[in-house]
Amino acid sequence: MSPIPPREQVRIDLGERSYPILIGQGLMAQLDELPLPRGSSALIVTNTTVEPLYARTLREALVRRHGRVNTLALPDGEEHKTWETLQRIFDVLLEQGSDRKTVLYALGGGVVGDITGFAAACFMRGVPFVQVPTTLLAQVDSSVGGKTAINHPRGKNMIGAFYQPQLVVCDLATLNTLPERELSAGLAEVIKYGPIHDMAFFDWIETNIDALRAREPRALAHAVKRSCEIKAEVVGQDERESGLRAILNFGHTFGHAIEAGLGYGRWLHGEAVGCGMVMALALSEELGLVDSAFVRRCTALIERAGLPTRGPRLGASRYLELMRLDKKSEAGEIRFIVVAAPGRAELRAAPDALVARVIERCCA
Amino acid sequence: MSPIPPREQVRIDLGERSYPILIGQGLMAQLDELPLPRGSSALIVTNTTVEPLYARTLREALVRRHGRVNTLALPDGEEHKTWETLQRIFDVLLEQGSDRKTVLYALGGGVVGDITGFAAACFMRGVPFVQVPTTLLAQVDSSVGGKTAINHPRGKNMIGAFYQPQLVVCDLATLNTLPERELSAGLAEVIKYGPIHDMAFFDWIETNIDALRAREPRALAHAVKRSCEIKAEVVGQDERESGLRAILNFGHTFGHAIEAGLGYGRWLHGEAVGCGMVMALALSEELGLVDSAFVRRCTALIERAGLPTRGPRLGASRYLELMRLDKKSEAGEIRFIVVAAPGRAELRAAPDALVARVIERCCA
Repeated sequence: MSPIPPREQVRIDLGERSYPILIGQGLMAQLDELPLPRGSSALIVTNTTVEPLYARTLREALVRRHGRVNTLALPDGEEHKTWETLQRIFDVLLEQGSDRKTVLYALGGGVVGDITGFAAACFMRGVPFVQVPTTLLAQVDSSVGGKTAINHPRGKNMIGAFYQPQLVVCDLATLNTLPERELSAGLAEVIKYGPIHDMAFFDWIETNIDALRAREPRALAHAVKRSCEIKAEVVGQDERESGLRAILNFGHTFGHAIEAGLGYGRWLHGEAVGCGMVMALALSEELGLVDSAFVRRCTALIERAGLPTRGPRLGASRYLELMRLDKKSEAGEIRFIVVAAPGRAELRAAPDALVARVIERCCA
Repeated sequence: MSPIPPREQVRIDLGERSYPILIGQGLMAQLDELPLPRGSSALIVTNTTVEPLYARTLREALVRRHGRVNTLALPDGEEHKTWETLQRIFDVLLEQGSDRKTVLYALGGGVVGDITGFAAACFMRGVPFVQVPTTLLAQVDSSVGGKTAINHPRGKNMIGAFYQPQLVVCDLATLNTLPERELSAGLAEVIKYGPIHDMAFFDWIETNIDALRAREPRALAHAVKRSCEIKAEVVGQDERESGLRAILNFGHTFGHAIEAGLGYGRWLHGEAVGCGMVMALALSEELGLVDSAFVRRCTALIERAGLPTRGPRLGASRYLELMRLDKKSEAGEIRFIVVAAPGRAELRAAPDALVARVIERCCA
């Protein structure tokens, strides 16, 4: 195996909103050789953690393409995914005399991607947007699907838009500076694609989990590529989440309740999803859809990825209350993504008593 | 002529985002008989001027269709088209336990339509939206095109989205309570369609201008219908304003400068557009595209509609400065919509000196 994997590409096919995802080592420094949107100015939106690591490299590549390139470093953390922070992006865009062709570059993880994407969706009713995700979670998750949003005091991602980027550049070299815990959080969303869609990919992850945690470039490249492909396949069939696409939220209904119940930021999103998947698997078992061996096998891999597999003890009624606020609930009925059979997911309601039993069973 | 005109319909054809505009007398009380979106709850967003006139009628019709219907009355006026006001809509939606199928009804003029539409575009990344415009301007202009927005301290409509309603209901009876000045402001956008697209319609307006100002229902019905048809034709070819659609901004580049220069609210938007059309016509003449007789003919009709035809004396350099901030400008170059020939418009740059001469000529 050569240490530097070849450049991979995934084409996201959404008609006139189609775009490529490029995956490779050291892509950021060569960004000006890629098919960037035109525009005589650009703004790099990043955060104060990522800025000292990569903003300069990105900016140097971009000035070769756009006339003026400014950088805005937002404070780091989910708690800053607010209107106030969004407003700072608009202020800078207007101060620098931006127009409808000014390009926004999101350099960072999911928070930076979500807020920058939403800024691009709204600024002058839509300007071009390029994602340069620097976390594994953002590379496998935010790269595909066009979901952008900010939080509202009453709920996560309540205010947002479906807005596609023109290009996504996953530079695998950025994962070398990623903290261990965040790498594991990203693996949660990689593992997710196994039970809901592709058990062959699940087999591959089981074989390669140590290489992934050791950040072996070829393993990372495949994990990112295959995750994006699967997500693209699902999103391509249901861009605006009217049905099928909801299966991508496997583990998220329980996960969001964990995040909200503990207060955002205590657990990483991927950690909550990892544990949420264990709970969703337990629910699938309680509903008689999968057997306990399958649940144990999935749980073991989630654990090997370095993720928590026992939920915090918030109490079943608190979990249920929080889950009823979920955007997927309708007229107060919670809808869970369950594994109908290994490799296939579906959306289901479940009796409160059954869900409560799952919560009791899965919480430490 | 019968006093009550037949119900008119214009179909806006935008693929999966298509919707009908219904035009007629007294439609609001029969709204539940129309093809409304489903949804077990709804929110009527209106303003404190319109609420006492129509909110009750609308609510009574809607409770027959949706389980829960709340009303939120915003303060009246362009100066409230802000994030803070938008936030109030989100707060109420979340307090009432809304979901992704909750329907937003915009009951009012352009400000209510723009802000409610933007709220619908962003809330949970998009909920269904129905427009019930109660001003002539909103009926002929906001009904078609899906432009939604709020203002930013540095510029009008800077933050927004293209988002289509599922239905627009123009109840002509609401125009009976419209102040004279606002009726004239609406006529500016009706007259606009003549020089840029349809001189036969311009002839019709010349013949019927007194009937329109007297609010004769049949005349109003035709003016609203034909305006929506023309706008639909243009928007259908260019939904996201990459080219052709810009011609609908005829008079708006000068008009926005007037509004911004005097401070928003001093002149009504339609008044500024009326006067802006005179300036854009003068520019077309200076560029040798149309003759002075045509400019005089258009100016006479704008005056008969009760609109100002002389701009405020802000000084040419201030006008130019304000126009460079316009969303249509690119890399600092102002692009004007001019009349290339009677009934046909195009986008053009023009030398500052020429524009300055037009401004001097057209300002009182």
